[in-house]
Amino acid sequence: MPILCRPAVWVPEFIVSRDETLDLCRRLHAGHEKLSLVLRMIENTGVRKRHLIQPLEKTLQHPGFEARNRVYLSEARSRVPGVVCEALASADVAAEDIDAIVFVSCTGFTMPPLTASMINAMGFRHDTRQIPMAQLGCAAGGAAINRAHDFCLAYPDANVLIVACEFCSLCYQPTDTGVGSLLSNGLFGDAIAAAVLRGRGGTGMRLERNASYLVPDTEDWISYDVKATGFHFQLDKRVPGTMSMLAPSLRTVSHAHGWDASALDFYLIHAGGPRILDDLSHLLAVEPDAFRHSRATLTEYGNIASAVVLDALRRLFDHNLPEGARGLLAGFGPGITAEISLGTWSVGPRTPARVTAGTENLPATDITAPPLAEPTSLVR
Amino acid sequence: MPILCRPAVWVPEFIVSRDETLDLCRRLHAGHEKLSLVLRMIENTGVRKRHLIQPLEKTLQHPGFEARNRVYLSEARSRVPGVVCEALASADVAAEDIDAIVFVSCTGFTMPPLTASMINAMGFRHDTRQIPMAQLGCAAGGAAINRAHDFCLAYPDANVLIVACEFCSLCYQPTDTGVGSLLSNGLFGDAIAAAVLRGRGGTGMRLERNASYLVPDTEDWISYDVKATGFHFQLDKRVPGTMSMLAPSLRTVSHAHGWDASALDFYLIHAGGPRILDDLSHLLAVEPDAFRHSRATLTEYGNIASAVVLDALRRLFDHNLPEGARGLLAGFGPGITAEISLGTWSVGPRTPARVTAGTENLPATDITAPPLAEPTSLVR
Repeated sequence: MPILCRPAVWVPEFIVSRDETLDLCRRLHAGHEKLSLVLRMIENTGVRKRHLIQPLEKTLQHPGFEARNRVYLSEARSRVPGVVCEALASADVAAEDIDAIVFVSCTGFTMPPLTASMINAMGFRHDTRQIPMAQLGCAAGGAAINRAHDFCLAYPDANVLIVACEFCSLCYQPTDTGVGSLLSNGLFGDAIAAAVLRGRGGTGMRLERNASYLVPDTEDWISYDVKATGFHFQLDKRVPGTMSMLAPSLRTVSHAHGWDASALDFYLIHAGGPRILDDLSHLLAVEPDAFRHSRATLTEYGNIASAVVLDALRRLFDHNLPEGARGLLAGFGPGITAEISLGTWSVGPRTPARVTAGTENLPATDITAPPLAEPTSLVR
Repeated sequence: MPILCRPAVWVPEFIVSRDETLDLCRRLHAGHEKLSLVLRMIENTGVRKRHLIQPLEKTLQHPGFEARNRVYLSEARSRVPGVVCEALASADVAAEDIDAIVFVSCTGFTMPPLTASMINAMGFRHDTRQIPMAQLGCAAGGAAINRAHDFCLAYPDANVLIVACEFCSLCYQPTDTGVGSLLSNGLFGDAIAAAVLRGRGGTGMRLERNASYLVPDTEDWISYDVKATGFHFQLDKRVPGTMSMLAPSLRTVSHAHGWDASALDFYLIHAGGPRILDDLSHLLAVEPDAFRHSRATLTEYGNIASAVVLDALRRLFDHNLPEGARGLLAGFGPGITAEISLGTWSVGPRTPARVTAGTENLPATDITAPPLAEPTSLVR
C-alpha cells in the first residue's frame, strides 16, 4: 500500500498579525453595522498570524483580475519548485521517479496547468500524468491525496507528487463587505505544500482506504461568484455548523474499514475554522488535543485552504508515531464535500522508490486488472 | 478490463454555417491586413457548420465575464442532465451505480464543480467521487477517459461517468484580432458529451493501456490569457505542425503494448483542425479514411474541444466492429499534451453493471493492492 511521505510546506515572507488584521478591519469598515460581530468572529478564529504572497498594502489593492492572475502565475512558477524539491528529497525520490502530478489550487487559473511548466523546468518525465483540479477549494487537499491513492492502487509501483498551491490573498475583494467576506478576510492565508505518495517504501501515512461525501443540497454554501474582478468567495453562515452533517460520513468510512472513528491514534482535519475543529472533536468524542496539528496550522498560518491537511501531516511527522498507528485525514470544502482518507503509520526503513532502476526494462505486458475492490459506499 | 460504452452527444440548436462564418469574418474584419489568409484558413478547416449555445447575434456580444459565466452555469445545469441520462441508458447503468464522475470543461468556471449539482439533482450517490478538471483544454477528453480508466484499475467493479461540457462560443473575444484568434472564431463549436466507463460488462472500447505525453517547451503554444473579460484563447501558429512531435509518442505507447500504431482497426483522434488529421495519418502511414469519424465531427460540429474524441467514438458505434478490433484514441491540447488510450472492441452481451445489486452487502475488506503494473514510460 502506498505511503504518503513527509510534506514540505512553504509560507511567504509577508506576515499579517491578528492585531494588524483587527486594526485593519476597524479602519476599513468603521461604519459597518456588524463590525463588532465581525471583530469578535475574527478574534475567535484563533489565527495569530498569516503569511501573504505580497506586502499588506499591495494585498489590499485590487489591480484587476488580469494583473492578479499574472502575480499568481509568476509566484507559483518561482515558488513551487523549491517546495517540490524539498518534498522529493524527504521522500527520497527523484523527479524522474514521479509518474503523476496532482496539482490543486483554487486561487488562480491557468491553462495549461502549472504541471506543464513543472515538467519542463524540473526534470519530470514528459510522460508524467497531469491531474490538475481547480474547483474543489479547501477539500482539494484531501481530494489530491485520494486521487493519488487511487493512482497507486491502479499502478502499485507508481509514485505521485501532490502539490497544493493556495494564494488566498489574491482573492481578496475590497468591495465585498458581507459578514462572511469580512470573516474570510481575517481567516485565510497563503501557502504552498507538496508531498510524495510512494507506491513502495517510505516513511509516513500508509493509505488504506478513501472516500468522498457530498452533503445534500449545500452546493451554494461555499462558492465562487466569478466576475470581471475575479473569484469572489461566498461563505454561508451555516458552514461553521456543517460538522453534524459530515461527522457521520467519517464514522461510516471508519466502520467500513473495521475501525472506530472515535478511537484512532491520529487525526488530520481541515482547519476551516475553530468551530469545525471544536464541533468535530465533540461529535467524534475525541479530546480537542487530538486535532492539535490542525489547530497549530490555523493559529500560525490561518486557513491555507487545500494545503491545511498537508501542513497538519507535516507537523505529525515530528511526533515519532509507532508503526501501525491508525489515523484519519479529512479535507472539507465546497459542495459541501468531505474527502476522507484512512491509513496507518509506517516507520519502515527507507528503501529506493523503485525496485528496478527505471521502467525501460520492464516487459510490455498488459496492465492486468487488480482483484475485486469496491469504493466504500457511504450513502445507500 | 473496463469498457467505454456508447457516448451521448448533444449540440445546441443555434447553427452557424461556413458561409455565414466567412461572411461574418469579412464584415467584422474588413480592413484586416491578413483577411484573405484568415478566410482561406477558415475554408480549409473543412468545418461546414457549428452549433452555438446562443443565437449568433448574442454570441457576438460580450456582456462581461460575469454574465457569460452565468450563462455557462445555467446552460450546463439545464443541458448536462439529458445527455448524462442518455449515456447512462446506453450503458445500461443507473445513476446510483456510478462511483466517480470525471467532469471536464475549459469554457467556464464554477466552484463547486458541476458534479455537486449533478449529484444533488440526478440521483447519484452522495459518496460519488468528484473529479473535475478545467485546465487541460482539448486534451481533457482523452485525460477524462484515462483517469476513469485508472479509477477502474484501482476499483475493478466501479463505473465512472465521463462528462465533457464545452461552450467554446462563450470564450469569443471580439477584441482579439490576431490570425490565431480569427481562425479559432471560425473553428470551435459547442457541445456536451457523456459516456460511462463500466468496470464489468458492456459494449464498446475495452480500455487496456493509457499514457500521457507533454511536448517539451511548448507550454505557451496553446494557452489562456486570463483577463477581466474572461478567458482569451491564444493559439500559436506552430500548433498545426505539432503532429511530428506527437506521433512518436503514439508509436511508443502502441509498441509498449505489442501493437503497431500503423496497423490498428480504428482511430479516434482529436480533430483540432484538418492539418492535424492530415499530418497524423501521413506520419502513422494510415489511410486518411481511418480518421473519418474525427473528420465527420470536425465537418459537422467544428472543433468541440474535449468532446471531440467522445463524439468520434459515438460515430464508431454505428460501424459494427468485430470483437477484439484494436484501436487508439488520442486527445491533444495545451501543454502541448497528448492523452492516449489503447483498447479493443467488445461486442459482449449486455450484463448488469454490477454482479451484486449494490454495494451495501459487500464485506468491509481492505482495498488490497493489485499486482505489479507500470505506467507506460514514453520518454527515458
